[in-house]
Amino acid sequence: MKESAGRKQSGVSPCAACKLLRRRCSQDCVFAPYFPADDPHKFASVHKVFGASNVNKMLQELPEQWRGDAVNSMVYEANARVRDPVYGCVGAISSLQQQIDLLQTQLAIAQAEMVHMRIRHFSPMSAAADNTAMDSSENAYDV
Amino acid sequence: MKESAGRKQSGVSPCAACKLLRRRCSQDCVFAPYFPADDPHKFASVHKVFGASNVNKMLQELPEQWRGDAVNSMVYEANARVRDPVYGCVGAISSLQQQIDLLQTQLAIAQAEMVHMRIRHFSPMSAAADNTAMDSSENAYDV
Repeated sequence: MKESAGRKQSGVSPCAACKLLRRRCSQDCVFAPYFPADDPHKFASVHKVFGASNVNKMLQELPEQWRGDAVNSMVYEANARVRDPVYGCVGAISSLQQQIDLLQTQLAIAQAEMVHMRIRHFSPMSAAADNTAMDSSENAYDV
Repeated sequence: MKESAGRKQSGVSPCAACKLLRRRCSQDCVFAPYFPADDPHKFASVHKVFGASNVNKMLQELPEQWRGDAVNSMVYEANARVRDPVYGCVGAISSLQQQIDLLQTQLAIAQAEMVHMRIRHFSPMSAAADNTAMDSSENAYDV
């Protein structure tokens, strides 16, 4: 019999998923390691957005070592969709993309300004201007 | 009778959702305006990830003017989950967040470098150093 990693099996209390679905929580319940009875909201949100059957299917298709991460990302996505039923996670992606565009613009401006400052202080033109100034001061001494 | 916006109703062919679900596509089908028969993959991915019943429920809960955006964001999320069954959209969010951290660091470095350049060229210390240089050149002429 397969024993799922991290499962707290009291022998009597069903996991949050089986409790919500009103079904018997078996020893090899695919939900039990990730949806403990003391955190009912975690399953409630993925159930509302993805549906228990789809979550079950998606978990079954993954090797056990990836299921914890998959559940966490589904919970994150589901909570985002509950908070923002129109854009969900995609709203966050769009906002992050806008931040990236702004930062890239600010960085390009800063880098251009630095290049400009360097050119002003270290260019041959700038050195020539310095020499001209020096020449005229020498001439002043000649006079 | 409600006529859904943007629906191409041929009178015979069901929308992509009703075709996949093998059901009659009614005049007020909630899926039809967003899942045309000629793009079956669009519905297939949201069906696989969210389930037809959840997509239906989510759309019904939204005013019609938001449904198009909601469908597009669900299709985006579903495609991300199909491509990356472990992280889905959250993988993209994590990657964008890393890009933002990197850009913020690069911008902070560039801004600190600019402040440093300005201080070096316009500080009283720098002016004093220039005056000292001028004084010693004057002394040289005195000699």
